[in-house]
Amino acid sequence: MTAHAVVLTSVRRAFPFGLLDRPGADHVTIVAEVGHPHRFPRGGAAPGTATVDVVEVESIRDTTEVLRAVRRVSASRPVDRVVSPVEFGVATAGFLRSSLGIPGESFDVGLAFSDKFLMKRRLAEAGVRTARFTRVFDPADVGAAGDGLGWPVIVKPSVGALCMDVARIDGPDEAIAWATGPVGERLRADGMPVAVEQYVAMDQEFHVDAVVRAGEVLFATVSIYFAPLLGQIDDFDGSWIVPHDHPDHAEALALATRSVDALGLRDGIAHVELFRSADGFRVGEAACRPPGGGIVDAVRHQHGVDLWEAYWSVALGRAPELDAVATEGVVANVNLPIRPGRIVELSTEVEIRAACPGLIDVRMTMRVGDVISSDLNSSSTPGVVFFRARDEAGIRTTLASLRRAYRLEVEPTSG
Amino acid sequence: MTAHAVVLTSVRRAFPFGLLDRPGADHVTIVAEVGHPHRFPRGGAAPGTATVDVVEVESIRDTTEVLRAVRRVSASRPVDRVVSPVEFGVATAGFLRSSLGIPGESFDVGLAFSDKFLMKRRLAEAGVRTARFTRVFDPADVGAAGDGLGWPVIVKPSVGALCMDVARIDGPDEAIAWATGPVGERLRADGMPVAVEQYVAMDQEFHVDAVVRAGEVLFATVSIYFAPLLGQIDDFDGSWIVPHDHPDHAEALALATRSVDALGLRDGIAHVELFRSADGFRVGEAACRPPGGGIVDAVRHQHGVDLWEAYWSVALGRAPELDAVATEGVVANVNLPIRPGRIVELSTEVEIRAACPGLIDVRMTMRVGDVISSDLNSSSTPGVVFFRARDEAGIRTTLASLRRAYRLEVEPTSG
Repeated sequence: MTAHAVVLTSVRRAFPFGLLDRPGADHVTIVAEVGHPHRFPRGGAAPGTATVDVVEVESIRDTTEVLRAVRRVSASRPVDRVVSPVEFGVATAGFLRSSLGIPGESFDVGLAFSDKFLMKRRLAEAGVRTARFTRVFDPADVGAAGDGLGWPVIVKPSVGALCMDVARIDGPDEAIAWATGPVGERLRADGMPVAVEQYVAMDQEFHVDAVVRAGEVLFATVSIYFAPLLGQIDDFDGSWIVPHDHPDHAEALALATRSVDALGLRDGIAHVELFRSADGFRVGEAACRPPGGGIVDAVRHQHGVDLWEAYWSVALGRAPELDAVATEGVVANVNLPIRPGRIVELSTEVEIRAACPGLIDVRMTMRVGDVISSDLNSSSTPGVVFFRARDEAGIRTTLASLRRAYRLEVEPTSG
Repeated sequence: MTAHAVVLTSVRRAFPFGLLDRPGADHVTIVAEVGHPHRFPRGGAAPGTATVDVVEVESIRDTTEVLRAVRRVSASRPVDRVVSPVEFGVATAGFLRSSLGIPGESFDVGLAFSDKFLMKRRLAEAGVRTARFTRVFDPADVGAAGDGLGWPVIVKPSVGALCMDVARIDGPDEAIAWATGPVGERLRADGMPVAVEQYVAMDQEFHVDAVVRAGEVLFATVSIYFAPLLGQIDDFDGSWIVPHDHPDHAEALALATRSVDALGLRDGIAHVELFRSADGFRVGEAACRPPGGGIVDAVRHQHGVDLWEAYWSVALGRAPELDAVATEGVVANVNLPIRPGRIVELSTEVEIRAACPGLIDVRMTMRVGDVISSDLNSSSTPGVVFFRARDEAGIRTTLASLRRAYRLEVEPTSG
């Protein structure tokens, strides 16, 4: 039993706070950012569940500020564990653990899983193949970086989350336009280094989700994205879990395992993205938290493993409940497409069920009348669909059927 | 040749900036704290010497602020090395290296050499004997900590430098007085954790100064303090370098080497303090910088090794110039005593020379009329004396002679 866990959160990818109702911690202090609407549980609802306090900070990325807040909290109740289910808090959580001597992944490991440049460098140093990469401290230097790496390149803030501010740049002129445009100007104002990577055309993109404890992979599952993620927001995206006898399964799993090791994760959940091109596999990125979208549920439907439960258990130093089972066929998770504007037409749940043989579940999260901002990211979706097919061909058939049936119309909004 | 080194400084223990006139770096950015009087070299005085810029921050302990400043600096000139010759910057320097992927000691190693609790815990985990210790986040909890460890205890801010705010507390009542007094209140207001250590009576206190490169000790020297440091500010302090055949030399050196290894230093200068009690040796503290007071000069007089040159070389990734020699006898460095007030009488250099057979050098830094604040610390002294004796007995004789001859009178000041 952990006496006291600190959980870092921000507005995105909120922690599934239902976990706090399971045994694990006596008390949880949530460190949240001010100005975001919070709906945190009060805690202590039942005997054996955690009581909850909330402490607000300006930014969970400000290591100095968060350390000060957590030291204050420690004065009344010692902190045993620090958990960051949100990407922006991963380095800060490592900083807190290192600074306060709390068990778990250090600042260096937190950085390896959140700074795109340090991540790739660690992978490359361990002999894991990645796209070629470099880093610039001034967006204006992307042009020179691209000349060195070869065009096109992908640029990313060295510390970011999801696909925010990730762009493909095809040559020197585009690099100048990007550096002097709104994203380049903002990154310069923030003093944010930019990771610059060689663009590599991919045939297929994979993700491997693994539960790691004491440096050992206890459970891992390999999935294939429907389409490479970047630039696919306005289309059906999602992934399907590939069976062990899939020709790419062994290599993807081995590469992800080497990546987890290279990045230094000993206790946690790894989400590793990798891709196959004409000349073989490369690792893209890795995160040390459960994946977003519908992946966690897909893994549960396929293997009976709850990655969030495992995350919370391992984060608290306990053995996760892993009774992995092999269910029939392959499970897919589909994020329905979205476009900015006011929704005037949207498929109903009934229509989706009718178009989706092998359907397991539908979760619609938007409806007609909702306004979708243009600030889309790779986890924006009006709904998630889970279905089971016999094999890869069955996945394709069902996806085609869904695509034919799906209705989405939006109208421009004045805002 | 290092293209660009960042050097963190604060008001205390300034870096010997003469080093910048030696080959090593093309350019040095000094990160200094605002509001301190600075006298930094302009640099670029001669071909092959570094040019110098100064960037000011509020506090070199504010990791967020310093990272932001160094990222800005990096936009115009990439940073190759980060150096902190001052204790308060050691953790920040590690933070910068980890965050920016710069070679050298990581944040965890910086913490191991600057946070008194993490330091002792690392040592204990590696089987290096220390006084028993714990940590509290509220000064009011020192009483309970002392009850657990056994009285008396020594309290220290978990991050501090020199002997600042270090105190011996003999029992629960004193603990309450300390916690509610000015130091306790300040530490509480700062949210500074307190390291609490069992007080262990010592027979003799040692320091070992070592040059470490690629994890290997290239040079090390063992010295004995005249008297255990704490509480000895108003007396002759200093140390003498013990010869290799001294009965404690081998054990002190072995223990210091194990400590350096346990704390994770692979490249740098270690200053390890350890002591012998009735029941054997324990390690007190360790720093990863050249020692203060007259020790660096004493080592140079004894062995011909310049620890500051070695520090700068290793920090820049170069092999240090180590042509260690064995000179005759033993070299001592003596810090002349001081008391707060206005100096009305003080020995002259001529008087000190006359009282000190084997004298190597005297450096008086104060004179009659100077006002000494009550904010003394273990490196406050009106002057340093270096002398050479045949052996330990000779050291005692000369110290006794110095003590008889030394004149210091101060009068109270109204300020």
